[in-house]
Amino acid sequence: MARIGIWIIGARGGLATTLIAGTHLMAAGRATRTGLVTDLPAFAGLPLFEPGDVVFGGHDIREGDVHLSALEIARANGSIPAEGLRAIDEQLAAAEAHIRPGTAFQGGPAIRAFVGRSVKSRETPKSAVARLRRDIAEFKTSERLDRVVVVNLASTEPPPDAEPPRDAAGLVKALSTGRGLRAGSLYAAAAIAEGCPWVNFTPSVSAMNDAVVDYARREGVPTAGSDGKTGETLVKSALAPMFAHRALRVLSWQGYNILGDRDGLVLSDPAHKASKVKSKDAVLRSVLGYAPHTHVGIDYVPSLGDNKTAWDFIHFEGFLGHRMSMQFTWQGCDAVLAAPLVLDLCRLVDAAAVSGLSGALPDLGFFFKSPIGSEEHDLHVQWERLTAFAGRLRPASKRVARRRR
Amino acid sequence: MARIGIWIIGARGGLATTLIAGTHLMAAGRATRTGLVTDLPAFAGLPLFEPGDVVFGGHDIREGDVHLSALEIARANGSIPAEGLRAIDEQLAAAEAHIRPGTAFQGGPAIRAFVGRSVKSRETPKSAVARLRRDIAEFKTSERLDRVVVVNLASTEPPPDAEPPRDAAGLVKALSTGRGLRAGSLYAAAAIAEGCPWVNFTPSVSAMNDAVVDYARREGVPTAGSDGKTGETLVKSALAPMFAHRALRVLSWQGYNILGDRDGLVLSDPAHKASKVKSKDAVLRSVLGYAPHTHVGIDYVPSLGDNKTAWDFIHFEGFLGHRMSMQFTWQGCDAVLAAPLVLDLCRLVDAAAVSGLSGALPDLGFFFKSPIGSEEHDLHVQWERLTAFAGRLRPASKRVARRRR
Amino acid sequence: MARIGIWIIGARGGLATTLIAGTHLMAAGRATRTGLVTDLPAFAGLPLFEPGDVVFGGHDIREGDVHLSALEIARANGSIPAEGLRAIDEQLAAAEAHIRPGTAFQGGPAIRAFVGRSVKSRETPKSAVARLRRDIAEFKTSERLDRVVVVNLASTEPPPDAEPPRDAAGLVKALSTGRGLRAGSLYAAAAIAEGCPWVNFTPSVSAMNDAVVDYARREGVPTAGSDGKTGETLVKSALAPMFAHRALRVLSWQGYNILGDRDGLVLSDPAHKASKVKSKDAVLRSVLGYAPHTHVGIDYVPSLGDNKTAWDFIHFEGFLGHRMSMQFTWQGCDAVLAAPLVLDLCRLVDAAAVSGLSGALPDLGFFFKSPIGSEEHDLHVQWERLTAFAGRLRPASKRVARRRR
Amino acid sequence: MARIGIWIIGARGGLATTLIAGTHLMAAGRATRTGLVTDLPAFAGLPLFEPGDVVFGGHDIREGDVHLSALEIARANGSIPAEGLRAIDEQLAAAEAHIRPGTAFQGGPAIRAFVGRSVKSRETPKSAVARLRRDIAEFKTSERLDRVVVVNLASTEPPPDAEPPRDAAGLVKALSTGRGLRAGSLYAAAAIAEGCPWVNFTPSVSAMNDAVVDYARREGVPTAGSDGKTGETLVKSALAPMFAHRALRVLSWQGYNILGDRDGLVLSDPAHKASKVKSKDAVLRSVLGYAPHTHVGIDYVPSLGDNKTAWDFIHFEGFLGHRMSMQFTWQGCDAVLAAPLVLDLCRLVDAAAVSGLSGALPDLGFFFKSPIGSEEHDLHVQWERLTAFAGRLRPASKRVARRRR
Repeated sequence: MARIGIWIIGARGGLATTLIAGTHLMAAGRATRTGLVTDLPAFAGLPLFEPGDVVFGGHDIREGDVHLSALEIARANGSIPAEGLRAIDEQLAAAEAHIRPGTAFQGGPAIRAFVGRSVKSRETPKSAVARLRRDIAEFKTSERLDRVVVVNLASTEPPPDAEPPRDAAGLVKALSTGRGLRAGSLYAAAAIAEGCPWVNFTPSVSAMNDAVVDYARREGVPTAGSDGKTGETLVKSALAPMFAHRALRVLSWQGYNILGDRDGLVLSDPAHKASKVKSKDAVLRSVLGYAPHTHVGIDYVPSLGDNKTAWDFIHFEGFLGHRMSMQFTWQGCDAVLAAPLVLDLCRLVDAAAVSGLSGALPDLGFFFKSPIGSEEHDLHVQWERLTAFAGRLRPASKRVARRRR
Repeated sequence: MARIGIWIIGARGGLATTLIAGTHLMAAGRATRTGLVTDLPAFAGLPLFEPGDVVFGGHDIREGDVHLSALEIARANGSIPAEGLRAIDEQLAAAEAHIRPGTAFQGGPAIRAFVGRSVKSRETPKSAVARLRRDIAEFKTSERLDRVVVVNLASTEPPPDAEPPRDAAGLVKALSTGRGLRAGSLYAAAAIAEGCPWVNFTPSVSAMNDAVVDYARREGVPTAGSDGKTGETLVKSALAPMFAHRALRVLSWQGYNILGDRDGLVLSDPAHKASKVKSKDAVLRSVLGYAPHTHVGIDYVPSLGDNKTAWDFIHFEGFLGHRMSMQFTWQGCDAVLAAPLVLDLCRLVDAAAVSGLSGALPDLGFFFKSPIGSEEHDLHVQWERLTAFAGRLRPASKRVARRRR
Repeated sequence: MARIGIWIIGARGGLATTLIAGTHLMAAGRATRTGLVTDLPAFAGLPLFEPGDVVFGGHDIREGDVHLSALEIARANGSIPAEGLRAIDEQLAAAEAHIRPGTAFQGGPAIRAFVGRSVKSRETPKSAVARLRRDIAEFKTSERLDRVVVVNLASTEPPPDAEPPRDAAGLVKALSTGRGLRAGSLYAAAAIAEGCPWVNFTPSVSAMNDAVVDYARREGVPTAGSDGKTGETLVKSALAPMFAHRALRVLSWQGYNILGDRDGLVLSDPAHKASKVKSKDAVLRSVLGYAPHTHVGIDYVPSLGDNKTAWDFIHFEGFLGHRMSMQFTWQGCDAVLAAPLVLDLCRLVDAAAVSGLSGALPDLGFFFKSPIGSEEHDLHVQWERLTAFAGRLRPASKRVARRRR
Repeated sequence: MARIGIWIIGARGGLATTLIAGTHLMAAGRATRTGLVTDLPAFAGLPLFEPGDVVFGGHDIREGDVHLSALEIARANGSIPAEGLRAIDEQLAAAEAHIRPGTAFQGGPAIRAFVGRSVKSRETPKSAVARLRRDIAEFKTSERLDRVVVVNLASTEPPPDAEPPRDAAGLVKALSTGRGLRAGSLYAAAAIAEGCPWVNFTPSVSAMNDAVVDYARREGVPTAGSDGKTGETLVKSALAPMFAHRALRVLSWQGYNILGDRDGLVLSDPAHKASKVKSKDAVLRSVLGYAPHTHVGIDYVPSLGDNKTAWDFIHFEGFLGHRMSMQFTWQGCDAVLAAPLVLDLCRLVDAAAVSGLSGALPDLGFFFKSPIGSEEHDLHVQWERLTAFAGRLRPASKRVARRRR
């Protein structure tokens, strides 16, 4: 049985905590596997690691403690079951012991408030990358891991101030000056340089762009991103095709998201929000084939915590120009929706790495708001592509005729 | 240019009126073609008739007048544009002139109140079918039509009191006794016997069952049904796959429909409602692969008229057993949503008939709540099948490589 | 400091458990007093008992244990804080020790399933009342209580099968035969005969009617009811006056309630639901002064537990006959909303008893869906009456000029 | 029978058109009086003018035509009944004939685009006021009117750039320099100087402030404002008291308004929006007695036209700190909701003027988001004050004992 490391950027955040606790709870048989896409029949027979194979570590710029964070989530939100936490005390402590100071390089205004004392403030991008690499390498060695996947769960960064590098060479060169880079670029570079698959679950464009993809391709590691599709945009990508295929003309699609966790606080800063809104707004134009009036609002409502609520209003025109409407309210816990997808992605990029794939994996677009290497946003087409991709990862011995669903 | 007849069962109802007026308004260039699925690029190059090719006629058990009905809809709901009606005076009068008394045979309790004086109350099923056939034949001759499609838009009938016939022979035999039949069966038999494709846009099971399909196959005409998917169920079939593919477990899906038109009044009778609720409730089990707690309510709210409103509440479980919810409100005008689909279906069954197909057309499941010959309810899979079917109808000369969407 | 007993009918139910745990948590300083109406400034200076003065006991027909019930609610719903429960172990055990078997006399079909073994099945109404009285009397003596208030929190009973008694004499007489009575009548009779104020927080009409009120008046104890107004009806009674005072004509008001606790299960039986729907539907006619089209649905959705969700759709007409709509979704935890109101009512009827009031207290209509002795359903007028009533309970010494709010 | 003039600032807008057409339709017996608050029993016996007594005129900075505007509204929205318009051809033409060019003095950025050619761009504030007064005076003379009420229905202005005048003397003085003034101040000054009651139905603070009120008091005319309460804020002021009186703690109240008419376009400019949001946000703090987290969004969605849609999400805390939520969607036509209120206000200020009242009328707060002279925002307290005010306007001869509602 292979031992797999999952190295998390933002390892003390709510999503990371939910992922770490949830994975260990599943391994201990104390939580159902609901929400794990890669557990569906369409993925049977794939060489995917199991929750019990995983060791966690990561970087964070904040001080904190994963165990305390898990207790706090259990108490405040109930989304991690309090009674189960005792059974995984040891694993949470182990994860915490593997967390190293991250880098806040050009992290953006809303990030500065969180930066802990152990984060070096006067480090060049190049030396930061060297340090980050050492942390990952030590993790792998000390835990005798067969493979490590690196996944970015940090807060959304603002778009870069300057033009980002265009290719691998440009990225390597930019590390000397820092021009066009932010912390996300450094994490990506470190992961890829260490030969680890890189998953960007955030909308931060510094962490996933042409240069990052090119670097991954050149270094022979697969990469996937960006921006996990967990709530309002997920629903959009499931519903918009209905309007398209029924020839109902969408006149306006207004979306209002309210949330209260650290993610919401960071996004309440306009510089950071810009990355997110752009990521959320691409779906409709792509699926509908024209650009209706749209708006995506994100507002910080502290009392909601991680229980994101979104209201979407869709105004559309049908036969004879008659106008009608649909509205929906989505009430979901972001970390709970995202955590299993992160695990799905780690399983899939790991299997992809083992099977020799490298560079962008556009067939994982199902998981993302801004899928790299793909313009497809129709959730159902994305599902077809994902399952076809899974079929190709399946060992020949298991590629027996499989019934659809 | 072929001349096509569309013979409507329930020709004076709100949906029929919207269809007749809308088709003629489009032909006159006074209405957009929004809502016509068969106008989408996926259907380009198919041999489909045009709105200007169509002549309408039909059966109805109610007295009335299509023109007055159109004016009333324009005034009360605005869903037919009042200003355009003058331009199609003549066509509305022509349609009205082609409407003949229908049959109310075993139509159900809520229907009786509507039955007009000209409807024969003491007619055997067999002589009724003969009379209905004569009406269709005369329509075809008098208007020198190349082909006629018959479509059922009448009010929902209760399920049959006795076991319905199993095959064509049984259906023909049952016409002598009426056992297991209702009005819908007679209309279907008459249409098929006249060599006309038969579309059952209602949930009435007497109008579409194994015997009807077998009869159509034997007589060499294509048939499609049942129960047009226009509102809440449409959204269900677009959204439920999202929950399935994201491995989110649906715990409960409650749906409440309120509407105020004649359809709503008929459905407020429990006998009639039974057919409808059954048709609406099949989607979830099929798409999800398990049976969550569900409820489908239909209540009559006179003030809403044809502006159906539906509220659905979806309670679901995600990672670590955490419970979340989604709710949507759909506010649509039923006739406006249904009318273009009826035209789409007439175009497609006509093209299917021309290309020699007969019996059930399961690939038209995209349009129906209870697709005959198919267990597939995932809207997106249905869309793939529909467009593949369209590809097969396309003349070889036009089957050039076509870009996806 | 007076010692006050609160004797609960249905003492092991979710609402009773929340009330008992919550009162003791407040007394221990481990819970805020949010939701206690009688803590608002309008009630300052009234002679109201404090949470720390209260001892709980009661009747129940189910087996169970208040402490386990509290733990279960804490675990499943989080509405009772798990961490606080240890601090009130002793009080929960004391409450449990004071719970006696109730009576299931004519309790209705949905109740039978719950009845525990200790409940006597062959007891005459008269001997049941005598037994219930003894239980209350022993509670008072053993705990050396100054006063006891009895409150009915049991499941909703069906309407009585026969005409209920009209006055006190009729009630006393009916106890011999049981004719027109149900369990609720026996509890009411026992409480009143023991000189305890009687609060009917349920819609059960057997527990509050002309005979019960007359009996209370004759015995010199105050009584209040019926059917606590906690959710959808509360909102209705706050919103309907807006439509009335703005001269907007309500055409239809549809209300759909879904819930999953024992209350919901009992109400899913049509016999039991009848009492509830009637109670919920009176508001609109009273406030609007005319009867719009209305519907009140209650459906059992197990996954929701006590988290009741209600969707109301209001269709209304404004200037020039133009039609508009409003809809709301209420998502509240029934026990959490009801428990503080029960405590408010106990405080107020106790103060009323001390000040010598007896019979119906119509000024407490603010708390009820079916206020006895009052036709007023406008929440705001009810609020004015409640605060005026409070003013009259205030000792002369404290009746200084008080600023409005 | 007195002849009454209603002089409208913004006389060619959608609200003015709906008011003018609606009043004449009511006078002609072709429209119901739904929505007229002053038609409720509480106002019986008051000396109020009737729709048939009214002649309309006004100022506007846009070119246009009331009749065409009415036809356009009838066609696009159906909120003015098309069939009735022919019957009031003459009255619409008469109103149009009485419309004079307004002033765009400091009207704000979003206004400039609308200003027609006939509006003088180089006029001092003083000469503008003189011209506006002449227009009103001529209207009164030419139509032999007994009294004229002036009501501001123009688009929302930005807050003034400089400190506005504090009192009547300051206002008169400021007319020489224009300092601290905008167009709204000039209209107010002209109306009051002409002895006409002044109603500010907009949130524009230049049109209603201490100086305006003082001027009205000094000149002996009554005045009322500001910002008609028609939709989301109306609901807020009806619902917030429910939370306050039930001791439920509001944590967050998010409100999102989307609309597409000219009002929405003007408000999409941040300078103009500032006035509106401030006006909408005062309710909660006042009614609740504390300041929860709030947000009021207004977004321009062209396809909606005048059919404003608002979604409000209310997060609140109850017993034991448990969190719950309520959400509502309001779908109303702004002009339809506002027009009867404007007529109500004209009737009431006219009756107030006749009975000798002058200066601010705080008891009309029921109609406004920012009631002058009152801090009360509880809709129900406002209703009590309004009906008490009506009682005082009632002639002694009619002050017989009146039943509540």
